Amino acid sequence: MNVFELSDLEARELLEGTEARFVHGEMMTVAYWHFEPGVVLPEHAHPHEQVLNVIEGEFALSVDGETRRLRSGSVVVIPPDAVHAGRAVTDCRIIDVFHPVREDFR
Amino acid sequence: MNVFELSDLEARELLEGTEARFVHGEMMTVAYWHFEPGVVLPEHAHPHEQVLNVIEGEFALSVDGETRRLRSGSVVVIPPDAVHAGRAVTDCRIIDVFHPVREDFR
Repeated sequence: MNVFELSDLEARELLEGTEARFVHGEMMTVAYWHFEPGVVLPEHAHPHEQVLNVIEGEFALSVDGETRRLRSGSVVVIPPDAVHAGRAVTDCRIIDVFHPVREDFR
Repeated sequence: MNVFELSDLEARELLEGTEARFVHGEMMTVAYWHFEPGVVLPEHAHPHEQVLNVIEGEFALSVDGETRRLRSGSVVVIPPDAVHAGRAVTDCRIIDVFHPVREDFR
């Protein structure tokens, strides 16, 4: 059985003030983020569909120029190629899911 | 922006002792489950890849005959068509992601 324990996975600091862990299936990637307060994710886009889940904290997300304040229990479907950016208002835990696999995160 | 608040989504009791909420993208479905202790999910299989995330609690998962005890931070990649079943050992919160969309959960 393909079991992963997040506590055993290496945390990657792709951006200062962030920790990311990744689990890749054959068709999807799941990303587990921790953001320190104030971290800014610059605008970017990718061809993958993304579903963003705020598990803890408060996160300001912009998609195609619209900004919304998200909290624990907020879920956003980000379409392929949509330009998005974010800012951690507080300490945040976020789970992102992607299809297809984020080969760039392997 | 396609924002969903889990607290606003209708909870469906697909099985006694469970609550399920669903968010569907174009290519993925995300399922948010609450299981009461002792709930048993009978064996089933589906052609979708599934990634199961234990958010809270303890869950016994069987995949293709192998059983593992999962806790908060455990992640399992369940391949398409794998026969799987589960039992909530304690009160559990689980997030499942599927590709493609679970049309049967719409």
